[in-house]
Amino acid sequence: MDLRGVIHLLGWLLLFLAGAMLIPLPFALGNDSSDHTALLAAAGITAASGLIMARSTSLVRDLRVREGFAIVTFGWLLASAFGALPFVFSGAVPSYTDAFFETISGFTTTGATILTDIEAVPSGILFWRSFTHWLGGMGIILLSLAILPFLGVGGMQLFKAEVPGPVADKLTPRVTQTAKILWAVYILLSVAETALLMLGGLSLFDALCQTFGTMATGGFSTKNASIAAFPSPFVQWVIIIFMFLAGANFALHYRFAFRGWKIYRDDREFLVYVTIIGLASALIYVANTGVWRNFGEPAIRDTVFQVVSIQTTTGFITADYEQWPMLSQLVLFLLMFVGGSAGSTGGGIKVLRIYLLLKFVLAEFSRLLHPHAIIPVRVRQQTIPRDVVMNVLGFFVLYILIFAGGTLLIAAMGYDVATSFGAVAATLGNVGPGLGEVGAIDNYAHFPPIGKWILSFFMLLGRLELYTVLILFVPAYWRR
Amino acid sequence: MDLRGVIHLLGWLLLFLAGAMLIPLPFALGNDSSDHTALLAAAGITAASGLIMARSTSLVRDLRVREGFAIVTFGWLLASAFGALPFVFSGAVPSYTDAFFETISGFTTTGATILTDIEAVPSGILFWRSFTHWLGGMGIILLSLAILPFLGVGGMQLFKAEVPGPVADKLTPRVTQTAKILWAVYILLSVAETALLMLGGLSLFDALCQTFGTMATGGFSTKNASIAAFPSPFVQWVIIIFMFLAGANFALHYRFAFRGWKIYRDDREFLVYVTIIGLASALIYVANTGVWRNFGEPAIRDTVFQVVSIQTTTGFITADYEQWPMLSQLVLFLLMFVGGSAGSTGGGIKVLRIYLLLKFVLAEFSRLLHPHAIIPVRVRQQTIPRDVVMNVLGFFVLYILIFAGGTLLIAAMGYDVATSFGAVAATLGNVGPGLGEVGAIDNYAHFPPIGKWILSFFMLLGRLELYTVLILFVPAYWRR
Repeated sequence: MDLRGVIHLLGWLLLFLAGAMLIPLPFALGNDSSDHTALLAAAGITAASGLIMARSTSLVRDLRVREGFAIVTFGWLLASAFGALPFVFSGAVPSYTDAFFETISGFTTTGATILTDIEAVPSGILFWRSFTHWLGGMGIILLSLAILPFLGVGGMQLFKAEVPGPVADKLTPRVTQTAKILWAVYILLSVAETALLMLGGLSLFDALCQTFGTMATGGFSTKNASIAAFPSPFVQWVIIIFMFLAGANFALHYRFAFRGWKIYRDDREFLVYVTIIGLASALIYVANTGVWRNFGEPAIRDTVFQVVSIQTTTGFITADYEQWPMLSQLVLFLLMFVGGSAGSTGGGIKVLRIYLLLKFVLAEFSRLLHPHAIIPVRVRQQTIPRDVVMNVLGFFVLYILIFAGGTLLIAAMGYDVATSFGAVAATLGNVGPGLGEVGAIDNYAHFPPIGKWILSFFMLLGRLELYTVLILFVPAYWRR
Repeated sequence: MDLRGVIHLLGWLLLFLAGAMLIPLPFALGNDSSDHTALLAAAGITAASGLIMARSTSLVRDLRVREGFAIVTFGWLLASAFGALPFVFSGAVPSYTDAFFETISGFTTTGATILTDIEAVPSGILFWRSFTHWLGGMGIILLSLAILPFLGVGGMQLFKAEVPGPVADKLTPRVTQTAKILWAVYILLSVAETALLMLGGLSLFDALCQTFGTMATGGFSTKNASIAAFPSPFVQWVIIIFMFLAGANFALHYRFAFRGWKIYRDDREFLVYVTIIGLASALIYVANTGVWRNFGEPAIRDTVFQVVSIQTTTGFITADYEQWPMLSQLVLFLLMFVGGSAGSTGGGIKVLRIYLLLKFVLAEFSRLLHPHAIIPVRVRQQTIPRDVVMNVLGFFVLYILIFAGGTLLIAAMGYDVATSFGAVAATLGNVGPGLGEVGAIDNYAHFPPIGKWILSFFMLLGRLELYTVLILFVPAYWRR
């Protein structure tokens, strides 16, 4: 471990974060609240801390895999620790625990909130809250398509071949190049959604904040009623479409620009992604027969909105799904585990992994019928390397084990089965709303502080693909 | 597929089953009910069917792997289909659906019941009900230690080296030999438990029936209150000990006879099994602080009884655990997934598999730190073959996927989250009682017929290690 190099980079991250804290200022200056002073004070402290860290160390050019894990994990943690300051300074969230929960929920694009009255929060702080989503989403794109394949985490090595990325043992300038391309896509889509939402009648402030929540598959809204507060069908369909795009692989969107629709049609994960959304929507639409007042566009919209919102792990709400039949709730609950596509801003296990798991199980059947044959897992005629399959399997096992252990921790605080399962699935999967007492129209305010720290940890774990965080707890990691 | 050979063997199975139906007769003749005529009629029909099947076909000496799957699956199904007859004929269970559910619950050693008043059932039928457990347990020992390793299912190949079994492509006489040895252990333990229970004051009838439920890790009792109806601490501790032994690998018990205690001490799975029981008991004992009237022997007994009963997937009850705190209930729920040891009569995923999964996940961390090294999964310095690891992983993934899909089916019938999760976990894991409306003191009578057939299927799936049943649905299986 070369700690100097790590601290240096984290210092620069804080300087960048301090700069980001200034962006909400135009939306803060308009009102009488203390939010602009809170933002300025937080930016000052963050910048000073970053400066001290960056100046007291120096850039190490050849960072290795080991340092990568520490930079990613501590990067998200530090950003959340400092990003919480505006909430505390403005008085909008007096407790630091609550503020940290809200901020890591933002940066991990989870969208689980401890706010009981969102609309009472000053607009500058509200903007910052949504902006943490957007920054987190930017980080995730960098992470999932450039850094994680390099670190060997989470089956994303599949993309090694697709996105020109580093294969040697050092972080090369290629990462920067890949990141720039994908960020361009991210920014373009964000601009497009903001424009469309403004066309739908939203103010620039509301349009930007909902866009941040959408493109990052985050889920923070500026309204207590979430997206139900914007009843326009046009607005809701725009959000559905952009949630859908944000839950798909951003590398596809980039390549679409050059090679057209066939890019989507030829991508197996994308097809599975669309199929799951279609099947889940059909199932819920039918199961909700007793719920719908009529079976027209509003019913279809509510169904598709909730399915896309939960599967992409956004967590926006237009209908209180806890009033829906058990079957519909359980479908949504299972979608929380599926999550978005690999290389998207979505969380969860990821569609690609679920698909590979199914392929693997089917291959096992063939192996039983032909015990002496070697039967690889294939996707579109391509053999998936065994290491990648093992990696995906390991991730799935770890995800389920952490989920199971996590429910015990929440149940130990006296919560019922539905709430325990819902809270862990929704934080680990970076969804936001869960079931029971953390359902569609509830929030996380009622958790004791220890519960909020545990759930914050689950958000981080899920967001950084488990291994990136957990490896820091392996003694061998710190040995040289 | 050589169907003739399969049908021939299944014919013999029915003849054996018909003989088994005569064993409850001594307990049926003592009362005025119609149970002895029901048993005789059922035995007659079963014998006639078996005779027709066996006579119209002929023995095929060289059965292959493919036939093995069909024999095992259809064997359990046919035994349940005919074993249900005494329930229907006696009028104790008028509906055939209910009778089939009860019988497959018996043969799969699940212990889920549709009876609302067990004590009203004539004693001969009650004996038959418990006896199906014992026969099923006998079948499981044969299955898990002799047949499944041969079929290549479920990671039990680990035992290839330990139990002298067949490795060639044909069922050899070795299977018979292995089975005889292990059945001797099973019968000896059963005799011992029956004697001890009679020493504790139980009638021969009650002692035998509780023993059948214990040794098969089944859970059918002769009393509405399950084991709570026998309040003697001696009796309850005897049952705890024998449940514990039934949930351990029977091959260990056999080798213990020759090599003493070190056999247990040196077995990694056994140590993990004991550790899980110990940790779960400690956790529940502490979590139940508000439940206990005092913290003495009765509290310890209730805790250990429920932990051992659920983890070994027996399902006997001495305390209504649904009155316990959520944490305790959730611990029991997770134990349903762990299940007994490999080579025991217990169900669930099995301790050995859970242990290998943990080892595998840890190995993945090492692989991240040393990307170019080959890091095998090791147990006691022995490298576990990669095929076995893949097999265990495949089983786990399939188990979780079936569980998830299963909960949707149950929720579709309008059941809540706890009941859906509980019913599927308890049938797939062959436990019996679950959570919610299928909790400790509830039963399965309230399910609609379709629900009972679905849950029956889950019992079969779980008992036959998933693959054995599901492979029959693979088109390639039937092709030649």
